[in-house]
Amino acid sequence: MERAAHRLAPHVRRTPVIRSDELDSLASARFWLKAENLQRGGSFKIRGALHSVDQLVTAGCPGVVAQSTGNHAIAVALAARAHGLPAVLVLPTDASEAKVRRIRDAGAQVVFAGTSLAERSAVVGELREQYGYRVVDPYEDFNVVAGQATATAELLSQVNAVGGSLDAVVLPVGGGSAIAGACLAAEGVGVAVVAAEPAAVPALGAALRAGKPVTVASQPTMADGLRPDRIGQLPFSLVHGAVTTVVEVEETEIADAMRVVLERVRLVVEPSAATALAGALRFAISSGGSVSDIGVLLSGGNVDARTIGSLLLSDSTQISR
Amino acid sequence: MERAAHRLAPHVRRTPVIRSDELDSLASARFWLKAENLQRGGSFKIRGALHSVDQLVTAGCPGVVAQSTGNHAIAVALAARAHGLPAVLVLPTDASEAKVRRIRDAGAQVVFAGTSLAERSAVVGELREQYGYRVVDPYEDFNVVAGQATATAELLSQVNAVGGSLDAVVLPVGGGSAIAGACLAAEGVGVAVVAAEPAAVPALGAALRAGKPVTVASQPTMADGLRPDRIGQLPFSLVHGAVTTVVEVEETEIADAMRVVLERVRLVVEPSAATALAGALRFAISSGGSVSDIGVLLSGGNVDARTIGSLLLSDSTQISR
Repeated sequence: MERAAHRLAPHVRRTPVIRSDELDSLASARFWLKAENLQRGGSFKIRGALHSVDQLVTAGCPGVVAQSTGNHAIAVALAARAHGLPAVLVLPTDASEAKVRRIRDAGAQVVFAGTSLAERSAVVGELREQYGYRVVDPYEDFNVVAGQATATAELLSQVNAVGGSLDAVVLPVGGGSAIAGACLAAEGVGVAVVAAEPAAVPALGAALRAGKPVTVASQPTMADGLRPDRIGQLPFSLVHGAVTTVVEVEETEIADAMRVVLERVRLVVEPSAATALAGALRFAISSGGSVSDIGVLLSGGNVDARTIGSLLLSDSTQISR
Repeated sequence: MERAAHRLAPHVRRTPVIRSDELDSLASARFWLKAENLQRGGSFKIRGALHSVDQLVTAGCPGVVAQSTGNHAIAVALAARAHGLPAVLVLPTDASEAKVRRIRDAGAQVVFAGTSLAERSAVVGELREQYGYRVVDPYEDFNVVAGQATATAELLSQVNAVGGSLDAVVLPVGGGSAIAGACLAAEGVGVAVVAAEPAAVPALGAALRAGKPVTVASQPTMADGLRPDRIGQLPFSLVHGAVTTVVEVEETEIADAMRVVLERVRLVVEPSAATALAGALRFAISSGGSVSDIGVLLSGGNVDARTIGSLLLSDSTQISR
């Protein structure tokens, strides 16, 4: 991971850690928000994608293919463009428009395939055969996970640099690369690693109960980046025994947290990032004051204008006032 | 100003300077956005208010009164609360709801008075007599202006710290404290100071033409913080001969710039801050490539959820794509 941080430093932004009195007052805790919505490509995923693609290029590679709910695809498209490589990205048919537009803006080809991880993975296999491209897997590639780990490592280092000290970090869970990276970064430093996932797609909770990744029956969730219905094998192996708490977040909590970030923190984040904040708020409140400093990965900010607009014009609930 | 920076350092946030490839691509320039929307109280105005109120307290002061379109009032309310002083703030009847709420949340009293600067100033005079409070003037108090200057000084220092070098800084103009502070901060450092004001309230342009502050006939503007129809005498004296360019920004440009910041930069800013960005975009484009690095004061982020929601659901124009 330190090697990843060193290699990535010139190419990714050292995004700021944001504090907000108006946010803290909601839960009597200090929240330290790692603003990866301000990262290149609009999410932390550029870290893993660049780290992996760099090494594929070194090994010789004619092009790349990947499946993603969106942000990993944007990141792979940008990483491929940086190396002059062609890229084909496989997305679900219900992908966020903001994400599809950014992939195309980066000059990559988009292929849509169903709505499940299994459907996308099957198409990735076909495309790899057809083009002879290399796969940049968002979950099963250690280079990707080590890249994602640098987000949490930076957060810890930035908090320490201003004399703070985190009790816990909270990360959203889709396929598991962010939380797995956090477990790498927080190993041995005495910071609890807390996972937040939509109650609609409780893939990590189910996997921890089963002792292995399992495909869960999922419900619709506004957190489009957290729709994978199964956690990756590699992330699971890193997370198992290292994650201290899993918070299953309801859809209303995600919407409330998005409003809170917009109105009180003044950042635009996507629902996946709001899921992490919702989990952090619940974790802080349920700790009854025993947890004072909580880091949160605001994982991305690629959200359709219409989604935010509708959310802001709908009646806000108590927490957002 | 250096004394102000030293006194303020423990009490204000060193807000981040944000870069965005997606923004830069709109005007073939590098924009360095000083994110004072993330400042305590949601705007840079806490700098001037704290600096002034601190000194009033040292001199002995039973309470404070101030007029404001909103952000100076929030800032004075927070500064007064920090010292346990009562505060009465005079706002226009059409003030932003988000701003009024934050003033009351800080425990201060709000009095509404007309929509013009003259009407508010008259009521401030009455309240000062009635309560024996001290006035914290947003424009005519050198301590306020010196406090505001620290925002631009920080921006210059932060850009230099990462090896950058600004050609120009762009600031929004209401009563003039931000732009006057910028002239103080940028004196002798070879950075052009550019003013952006709504074409609907061209108070600085008119003052520079007249050689003195004049009250202008104003039209409605969405930039609620830039509605003062006359620039202050003190700001004018600092700005006259130091500001290199005044950009008069149309309402459509302000709305477009707000969408750009939300969608491409992923920050929530208020229309006054968007006015500065709109001015910076026009300045960059009209420079024909001769200006490459432009600092922009994103002055604040206190905006009603409904305003953003409506803006995002209305048809976006070309620039926001």
